[in-house]
Amino acid sequence: MTPYQAYVIDLDGTMYRGDEPLPFARAFVDKLAAKHIPYLFLTNNSSRTQEQIAAKLEHMGIRCRPENVLTTSIAAAIFINQQKPGARCYAIGEDGLFDALKKEGHRIAGDHCDVVVIGMDRDLTYEKLSRACLEVQNGALFLSTNGDVTIPTERGLEPGNGALTSVISVSTGKDPIFIGKPESLIMDQALKQLGTDKASTLLVGDNYDTDILAGIHAGMDTLMVFTGVTPYERYPSLPEKPTYYVNQLNEWLPHI
Amino acid sequence: MTPYQAYVIDLDGTMYRGDEPLPFARAFVDKLAAKHIPYLFLTNNSSRTQEQIAAKLEHMGIRCRPENVLTTSIAAAIFINQQKPGARCYAIGEDGLFDALKKEGHRIAGDHCDVVVIGMDRDLTYEKLSRACLEVQNGALFLSTNGDVTIPTERGLEPGNGALTSVISVSTGKDPIFIGKPESLIMDQALKQLGTDKASTLLVGDNYDTDILAGIHAGMDTLMVFTGVTPYERYPSLPEKPTYYVNQLNEWLPHI
Repeated sequence: MTPYQAYVIDLDGTMYRGDEPLPFARAFVDKLAAKHIPYLFLTNNSSRTQEQIAAKLEHMGIRCRPENVLTTSIAAAIFINQQKPGARCYAIGEDGLFDALKKEGHRIAGDHCDVVVIGMDRDLTYEKLSRACLEVQNGALFLSTNGDVTIPTERGLEPGNGALTSVISVSTGKDPIFIGKPESLIMDQALKQLGTDKASTLLVGDNYDTDILAGIHAGMDTLMVFTGVTPYERYPSLPEKPTYYVNQLNEWLPHI
Repeated sequence: MTPYQAYVIDLDGTMYRGDEPLPFARAFVDKLAAKHIPYLFLTNNSSRTQEQIAAKLEHMGIRCRPENVLTTSIAAAIFINQQKPGARCYAIGEDGLFDALKKEGHRIAGDHCDVVVIGMDRDLTYEKLSRACLEVQNGALFLSTNGDVTIPTERGLEPGNGALTSVISVSTGKDPIFIGKPESLIMDQALKQLGTDKASTLLVGDNYDTDILAGIHAGMDTLMVFTGVTPYERYPSLPEKPTYYVNQLNEWLPHI
């Protein structure tokens, strides 16, 4: 096997679980850094900024600068720029989304918007949902950072951004463009940011339905690790298998 | 035509629009009362109590006592009683829903619930939605007062209860039992409350997709009036026609 020239790596369930780093996550990234292999952390989390995520990883001893992070919020803001630079945006979301939109030069507004973009918002209100519906009905481009229907927390499975977005799609009858994994849109941006081609880049993740499918949809090789959402027990029934799988990341170290 | 012995009558778009009574609504109800024909107002509105709705109608000069009103909240509370008397309920909704649940002897609780019931709530929060998802995952019976995906307001089409409910159905993968029109469940309760049979009871409403279909599903005769949601222009393409239609309610007065 020719070593891969770049890595796209999921975070939750692959590098850490909650506030705890996963075994060998640090060693994995250290080896990439030692071999000067570029890597990009790719997350469907729309709530945090690049800086917040880099700080969290650094705190765990996992090497990361803000530019090593691509969130669905950043990807959404870049996608909007491709459609309409300096767009007038109505957004539902948290710090990560508003920060990304401003960084890309978009304006946040409450009416006559070009774009409606929905991200995870724990301060969601009826008024915010209503405003989004009205703007979408008035013709705004309808985006959603990701389609994840649940978020695993210590309480159980709480509603994810895909479930919140359904209020607007069900009410308006219009489907959003989803940005995050498993859509290939965010993978194209990841490859562009790394500057490598898909044939020489490996996607690493724990969640078959988001991470691995994103890699498969983008035509990339994939490495599945059983430290997160998808258990090994599901492997035999997976319709399209990942290129490789490991129980923990140390098994992959000899191939870096 | 043998005169009908009882009437089930929709409110919004049939008796009033917003705070204004519709033409001949008062005369229509006056003639029913003069002929001692029982009538029941049936609304998918889950927010208001029977008393609040009766007061609104009386204020417009339309004769109504609280017992002449059946809301989806009342119907939901009665349905829960049939499944589990004195149920422990988690509810998202406004006055009308909480009032109805208490009147039927149910307990409002935040965990270990037998039933989750969703009604329109303009004070919706993420925490409320999250709690509902957790309770449904834990096995609570999942009800929704009605499936209306929009509410027409002066601002446009705002999200209705059916759209809010989708957060929970999309997130948990479980479909709710909808109580309100066009489901026949609420029609069965209406007939039971009137004490008449469906062959001799007429359903009157303006909205084909809720009112008229509810009547058709219940096997009742229906009178459609073009003063609300469904315009006359849609009539030719309606898959199953109402039994009768009028432009305004005065056209029906001779048949009462």
